[in-house]
Amino acid sequence: MIVGKLTQEEREKDLKPLLSNGWSVQQNRDAIYKEFLFKNFNQAFGFMTKVALQAEKMDHHPEWFNVYNKVNITLSSHDVNGLSQRDVKLASFIDKAAKVGEN
Amino acid sequence: MIVGKLTQEEREKDLKPLLSNGWSVQQNRDAIYKEFLFKNFNQAFGFMTKVALQAEKMDHHPEWFNVYNKVNITLSSHDVNGLSQRDVKLASFIDKAAKVGEN
Repeated sequence: MIVGKLTQEEREKDLKPLLSNGWSVQQNRDAIYKEFLFKNFNQAFGFMTKVALQAEKMDHHPEWFNVYNKVNITLSSHDVNGLSQRDVKLASFIDKAAKVGEN
Repeated sequence: MIVGKLTQEEREKDLKPLLSNGWSVQQNRDAIYKEFLFKNFNQAFGFMTKVALQAEKMDHHPEWFNVYNKVNITLSSHDVNGLSQRDVKLASFIDKAAKVGEN
């Protein structure tokens, strides 16, 4: 499925709820970023595993950094050089998955 | 088990083999760094899962970044503010684990 860059309308409708929920648009890139804190590494990596399985299913993968209980995630769609509906979908999944073990 | 910072002797004996195998000491920190490339995300995250289980077992965790098939790993021992035998041990494990799916 080819999905284009988010339109202005989509940004109003679909991106805004994410920005109200801790995601922010990067200054130098059309990408969204969020930091997650968990109780410990076990919880953090459990979360990452859930996200990894979803990412693989969607064939849409995060850029992410982890150290101990912290996971920093950046989402963008390389093929459209910016944000697409796949990022909105993956971000929403990520927020749900994080709720379980988040600190 | 309390493990101190690597001595000069240990650096000669234990760190050198890692440095010959793609690890490098960071310029601004007493930490080691290596980049791994896999065939795809599935292989990369499979590798990360093996490392995560070992890290949890050792209670010694990596700082790592992943995007698609790439995994960048930094190891250091925060409690000694530098490299310890735990980093040597985890780095050796990581090199073995990477051999399976590496590109």
